[in-house]
Parts: sequence; C-alpha cells; structure tokens
Amino acid sequence: MPHLLSTSSTLKSCFSRPFTQSTSQQRTTDYPRCFTFKTSGYKCNGLVLQQDPSSHRSCIVRAAAAVPASREAPATNPRSGSSQAAAADGLPKAQKVMVIGGDGYCGWATALHLSNKGYEVAIVDSLVRRLFDHQLGLDSLTPIASIHNRIRRWKSLTGKTIELHIGDICDFEFLEEAFRSFQPDAAVHFGEQRSAPYSMIDRSRAIFTQHNNVIGTLNVLFAIKEFQQDCHLVKLGTMGEYGTPNIDIEEGYITITHNGRTDTLPYPKQASSFYHLSKVHDSHNIAFTCKAWGIRATDLNQGVVYGVRTEETEMHEELQNRLDYDAVFGTALNRFCVQAAVGHPLTVYGKGGQTRGYLDIRDTVQCVELAIANPGRPGEFRVFNQFTEQFSVNELASLVTNAGKKVGLDVKTTSVPNPRVEAEEHYYNAKHTKLIELGLQPHLLSDSLLDSLLNFAVKYKDRVDTKQIMPSVSWKSIGSKPKTLTS
Amino acid sequence: MPHLLSTSSTLKSCFSRPFTQSTSQQRTTDYPRCFTFKTSGYKCNGLVLQQDPSSHRSCIVRAAAAVPASREAPATNPRSGSSQAAAADGLPKAQKVMVIGGDGYCGWATALHLSNKGYEVAIVDSLVRRLFDHQLGLDSLTPIASIHNRIRRWKSLTGKTIELHIGDICDFEFLEEAFRSFQPDAAVHFGEQRSAPYSMIDRSRAIFTQHNNVIGTLNVLFAIKEFQQDCHLVKLGTMGEYGTPNIDIEEGYITITHNGRTDTLPYPKQASSFYHLSKVHDSHNIAFTCKAWGIRATDLNQGVVYGVRTEETEMHEELQNRLDYDAVFGTALNRFCVQAAVGHPLTVYGKGGQTRGYLDIRDTVQCVELAIANPGRPGEFRVFNQFTEQFSVNELASLVTNAGKKVGLDVKTTSVPNPRVEAEEHYYNAKHTKLIELGLQPHLLSDSLLDSLLNFAVKYKDRVDTKQIMPSVSWKSIGSKPKTLTS
Repeated sequence: MPHLLSTSSTLKSCFSRPFTQSTSQQRTTDYPRCFTFKTSGYKCNGLVLQQDPSSHRSCIVRAAAAVPASREAPATNPRSGSSQAAAADGLPKAQKVMVIGGDGYCGWATALHLSNKGYEVAIVDSLVRRLFDHQLGLDSLTPIASIHNRIRRWKSLTGKTIELHIGDICDFEFLEEAFRSFQPDAAVHFGEQRSAPYSMIDRSRAIFTQHNNVIGTLNVLFAIKEFQQDCHLVKLGTMGEYGTPNIDIEEGYITITHNGRTDTLPYPKQASSFYHLSKVHDSHNIAFTCKAWGIRATDLNQGVVYGVRTEETEMHEELQNRLDYDAVFGTALNRFCVQAAVGHPLTVYGKGGQTRGYLDIRDTVQCVELAIANPGRPGEFRVFNQFTEQFSVNELASLVTNAGKKVGLDVKTTSVPNPRVEAEEHYYNAKHTKLIELGLQPHLLSDSLLDSLLNFAVKYKDRVDTKQIMPSVSWKSIGSKPKTLTS
Repeated sequence: MPHLLSTSSTLKSCFSRPFTQSTSQQRTTDYPRCFTFKTSGYKCNGLVLQQDPSSHRSCIVRAAAAVPASREAPATNPRSGSSQAAAADGLPKAQKVMVIGGDGYCGWATALHLSNKGYEVAIVDSLVRRLFDHQLGLDSLTPIASIHNRIRRWKSLTGKTIELHIGDICDFEFLEEAFRSFQPDAAVHFGEQRSAPYSMIDRSRAIFTQHNNVIGTLNVLFAIKEFQQDCHLVKLGTMGEYGTPNIDIEEGYITITHNGRTDTLPYPKQASSFYHLSKVHDSHNIAFTCKAWGIRATDLNQGVVYGVRTEETEMHEELQNRLDYDAVFGTALNRFCVQAAVGHPLTVYGKGGQTRGYLDIRDTVQCVELAIANPGRPGEFRVFNQFTEQFSVNELASLVTNAGKKVGLDVKTTSVPNPRVEAEEHYYNAKHTKLIELGLQPHLLSDSLLDSLLNFAVKYKDRVDTKQIMPSVSWKSIGSKPKTLTS
C-alpha cells in the first residue's frame, strides 16, 4: 500500500486543524474532505483512522486535499450554461454530488466525469459488486484497480479529491453519517444490484435484489428528507421498467383519454425480472415521496450501456473501468464484442428480435451531468428515457459481424434457447427527447466505436473465461435452493 | 389452558399411526392435520410437541381431528356450482385453503367462512398484528380470544378443524414446511402489514411494511412455484393502488389507444403511503411470476371494509372479530361508529371529499370464496376490484349522523387537519363488476346495518380509549427516528 503509507503523515497532520487553501476561488476556511469506513478498528489498509465520537460503528479519516479540484476548475456546464449555484459571495460554488455505487461500471465513469467537470464528488459504495464476482467466479475483462487505488491515482493525476464512504446504504446509520458529513447538493444513485440474471439465479438472490434495491432507495429518500431537503435525487432506473408494450413508450407518463375524460398518469410498467421489478418499485416509491415530501427527483430510465472508455478512465490504467462479458453481468453489445474477439459465436437468445434502447457509456456520464445541472422543482418527479438508439439483438450481431471482418475476425452467430421470458418479436418505439432537449450530444454506435471495442476485447482476450459466456440462469427454473454457478 | 390439556392425550396417541376415519366421504387412510409452531422447545402452550426431524428450528403437533369437517359437509358452492374438484374416486374432494394472516380482521372472518362452507382451512399467521397493538398501546373495541382459543371454540361448536401454523412467511423455511404439510389448493394472502398510518409512523415502520409485505409475498410465490404449482394465489390488494386518477378506474387493466396503436396494459398505479405502495409492488411481482412461471393469481383490490359480524363470528363470543377504531388501524366507517357511540365528534380529515370504495365484511368473505371457487387459468393474473359502493368521507359522516339520531345519539362532526397527503376533492369512478358477474350478492350499507354497528359500538363503549381517536401520524412529518406513540 505505498500510496496509502506515503500520505498517512499528511492525514494525521490535518486532524486537528481546519484545512486552508489559497487559490483564487477560496471562499472560506474549510475542513478537508472525509473518508468514512465502516470498521471497528483504528487501522484500515494502512490509513490512520480517527474514531468518530458520534458512532461506535465507524471511523473517519480526514484526508488533506492538496487543492480541492472543484475550486481549481470551477465548473460551468458547456451545454446548459450555469450548472453551479452562485454562493453568497458571488463566486461560483462547486456542487457536491454523492455518487452512490460509484465503484461500479456506470458509477465509476460518472464519478470521474463529474470530478473532472469541477463537481465535488463523494463515492458511497459497499463494494458488494466485487464480492458478486468472487462468489460467482466471474471477473471483468479489464483489470481494475481497487477503489482506494483508483481514487489515489485520480488525485495524483489531477489533484482532484474524491471522497470515499465505504458502507451499505441499507444501513441507515451509515448513510446518515455520509449525508451529514458530505451534505450533497445531488445524489446520483447507482447503488443497486443491477443484473437481471443475477436476480433470477435463486430465491435468496431474488430477495436480496428487491430488498437491497428497494430498502436502499427508501433510505436515500429518508436521508434526503431529513438531512438535505434540497438534495436532487438522480436515480438510475431502466428502460426495462416499461417492458415491450404494443404502443409507443413515452418518458415516464402517458396522457390517456378514457370514457370521455383525460388524465396524465404514470406510464404502465411491465418488468420482466426481479431486478427490473425492483426498479419499478423504486419509481413508485420515489414518485410518492416527491408528492408527499417535496423531494425533487429525476428517474433516468437507462437503456443498455456499451463501451468502456471515457475521457477520464483512459487517462491511466488504474482508472480503467470494468467490462463484463459473462452471462450474468455482461450486456448484449459488450458481450458480443468479447465473444467476437475470442472466436466464440455471438449468443443470440431465441429469435433475436428483442429490441431495446442502447447508449455509449460516454453518454451515460453526459446524461447524469445534464440531469444534475438542470434539476427539477421541489416535489417534481421527472422521468427521462436515457438512451440514444434502438437495436434488435439480431441487428447488433450483424453490426459486430461486419465490424469484425474489418479487423480480421471471422465472427459467427449462434441462436441459443432463450433463458429469459420475453417477447422475441415485438413492436418497440420508445421516446427519448428530454435529454436531447437538455443538450445531450449522442455518441452514436459507429464502425469506429465497434472497431475500438473489438480491439480492446482482443487486447484482453487472454483474460476471458469462455465458460462464463453461455447463459447459466433460467427465468423458468429458478428455485428456492441456493445455487452455486459451476466453476 | 383447559382446552389444550384436555386434548393432549389424544394428540399423543396419534403420533405413531395414520389417522383413519369412517365417514362415507372417506377416500383413503389419511394423516390428521398438523399444527406447526416455530419454537426450539418441546412444549408449547401445554400442547405436546414432536420435534420435526427435517428441521432443527420447528416442532410439529399432529392433532387428531374427530372428523375433518370438510369431509363431513362436502362443499358445493351455492352460486358457482362445483367449487370442488372431483377426486379420482368420483367423490367431491374438499379444497384445501391456506389463509395467510388468518388471525386478522378480514383473515379470521374468511377462515371461519371457508371452514363453514366445507373447505379444509389452515391458518398461517405470525400474530404480529397483536404485537402492534401492544407496542402502540391500542386495542380492539371488541374483546378477542387468542387464536388458539378461537380455533378450539370453532372445533367444539362445529366439529370442524382449522389447522394452525404460527410463523412468519418472510421465513422461507417455515413457509416451506407449511406448504409441504398442508398442500393447499388455494392460498389466500392477507398476511401483510395493512395500515397506511402504521407505515407512515417512522422510517423503521415504513421499511418494515415494505420488507414484510414484498418479501413475504415473494416467498409465497416461490413456495407455490416449488411445492404446489397449481395452487391458486388469492392476494389481497387495495383500491388504494390506483390512487384518484381523473379517469374511470378499471379492474386491473386499461386498453389504451395511443398514436394510432392499441394495447391493454396494467392500469397505472399512484399509491399514497408506504403501505399502499407495498401492494403496488406485490401486484407487479405477482404479474411477472404469472407470466414467467405460469402461476395463477387473483389480485383482490379491496376497498375499505366495515362491519364486524359475520354468520360465523356471531356464533360465540370467543369467535368474535376485532374492530379497530384508533387512528392507526381504524378505517373510516368503523371509526365513525365508535366515535358516535362515545360522543366523540366524527373526525373528518380535511375537506372530506375523499371518495373511496367500501364493502361490508360479509362481502369480503363472499368475494374471497367466489375467487377461490372460480380460479383463473395457469399463468393468468386476474384483478378484481372488491367493493360494493362508493362514498365520500362527508357522505359517511352524514349517514352516521342520521343513523345516530335514530338510536338516540347526538352526533357531531369536526374537520381536523388532514394528516395524509391526498386530494380532498376529486373525480372517482371505479368499476367493480367482475365479482358481481361471479355471483356476489352485496350487503349494501343501510340504516339497519348502521344501527347495528352503532349499537355494537355502544355495547363496548367502556372499552374505548378516546386518546387513540385523533390522528397521530403525519404523512409529512415522518422521520427516521423510531417513534413511540404517546400513551
């Protein structure tokens, strides 16, 4: 832990005094950022810890930031103008954004992007996603550094500090501490179990998924209500909440005329896994708290994300994002590119007519930034459909096959029995204009992106465990007995 | 415990041999019914217990039924004809119905009604509803016997046995045991925390409500899938799932024509408490499992239930049902009658234009029986709106005032600040034809019913704690700190 040890004396030296800085943006004497760990000890990974007097259950490290990045480079949103509120002294005040689930695929890319754009960022994560990999015998295609090393590398490269709060948001005492110490202006909530197949492995994982996601989100809502009433909740939902209705999918609401009367109501939900259902439950819970408590929330019904590089993650190997290709966590396009790279046929489930919305991970981070920079009114529950293009699985397979040819790969496709219960041929037309109206400039799927993804997959192909590619989880045969995937 | 002790020798004597009976309906040698208790000991309430070899966590009592009631009086449903499947020998086979939450207000009345109609009934209940009363300092207006005494009294009066499984359906091991031993043809699921104000007391009770209801229902779905695939789930939902849209409320689904295309989709949900939301979550989860696993389910979106007497509960004081008048568990009409009886002004929340569907508890039991007797197809998710009439709160207050005059009560009404977040003046027109089509013969709210309810309330008025009448729970001021209601 050389990084940790080399900073520990700095850490200790700042315990007893406020942190003062001298940049031109300095407003007041301020306390440095905090790292909170859930631990009963005084040492953790070589960091010097200070026991938090308000709790017997956690320790806090106050780590001196050389120069808080958000003040070095005050953010102005290039598309929406003023993303930052003006402080009382007239100087731009960096917005504080808590990124819950900030160690995950979308969360890590978003945390770095927001930090780079001048937001003060705190990551809240239990790291349980890494535990899932251990338990299921899976691994990211790309080697990824520990969250501690990721954050230290970011600091050393950019001078920007990202706070880290390790803990489970289902533990309200932990979450309260994170909210009280960081006082976020916005909370981006990626901190959920996010795999449909994972939620369909066995009963205990189905229950875990719904409990973890629904209770975690309820706790975030209570924390906002109680400790940070104006905090804007930016919640990651999924396009899968809508299912595949035979009418156009609108953004969250639909105006219905029925028996001569008209109302605008929440768009009907037809989710098709315990994971997708957990997001439906979240949406209903959040909508209620907006109405009852005046919380401001944006539900980002995200499509399937592809890609791995963002401007920030490609700055250093230790900042690299994860890329999942396995049948549990890998999503369609990413998985296909890895399959093509290792010479495995692309696995199309059933007829392959399943059509969904897709987006580049560079647009995920852009969309979240746009939502934060343009918060809704108190009490408003906004829903944005967050994707840029629609593809069927067969169309994706065809695109990867053609891109493969250009880089010398002979790509085959195979149809495998569909492990899911879903329509394989259906109408699909989902609106996605609200984020465009806020300024989203999409990175559309192109040959060059596919080439780059394929070359990336080829680079790491020796890390691929081909046993993890075929579907291992069946929607119909899920049972109550705990299941260990075959090794 | 005289009842228990007097039967213990009979209990012991049947442990080692199958129970044989000699009625004309006897089909095969059969094992007597079981009582399952979650306990680590060998004695429980004076009953002789036998350790279940399959589990270290529970004990089973096999209690000899003199003559299983359901075979004494083979059921034929008076309205729907053949509610019972024919056994292989051609004789009618009594349907086995598991009543989850069978010790509660609707559950107890339903369990007795079904037992009386010839169904074999097993009650599954954790009795936590009684604990809520202790914790909140509340009590039923009517004195109620313990579930053990209730069941023994029923047996002694009618000769009919009701099985009792005491445990928490969130504990899958317990639920598995109940399903395996009873093998229900239908499971009626009342086993949820059912009070909106309770779910809005504090964070921990909000979380409890959603966890208990959602996870409990998921477990029931897994138990059906795994142990009793053909079991018909009859789930108690609530009309509150729909909220108060400005268009007619249909029964579960609505056909929408949008941009020139048409689909029939789940009716949009707008619930307005953590309790009501938990039922919305259940509905979505159940709909998915019907589609994915072929489960047959009926979601009974019930209105507000009033009344206390049913044909069965009035047979003996020990069979009497509970009647809640407090601000947490008491619902509008029942609460108004008790208020009128003790000379407390009727507490109308806000403007009183809040309109909902209502039904007599005698219709609750009738509706559940109709749903069981007419199950849907495997994979079908049916939704019935279970109420008979609509009233606004002001209309109810007026009805109770007039009925009060007839029995010599001078009834006043007072408007209190609305503790809830809800529209106080709104359009409301909800369909409720499906149960009528199955044969429901409603008991409409009448002067005579109101007189009887009022007289009942007068009879027990010395048991009323007037401090429990005024609203004590606010939708807006719910916080994360555990709250103890004032005593």
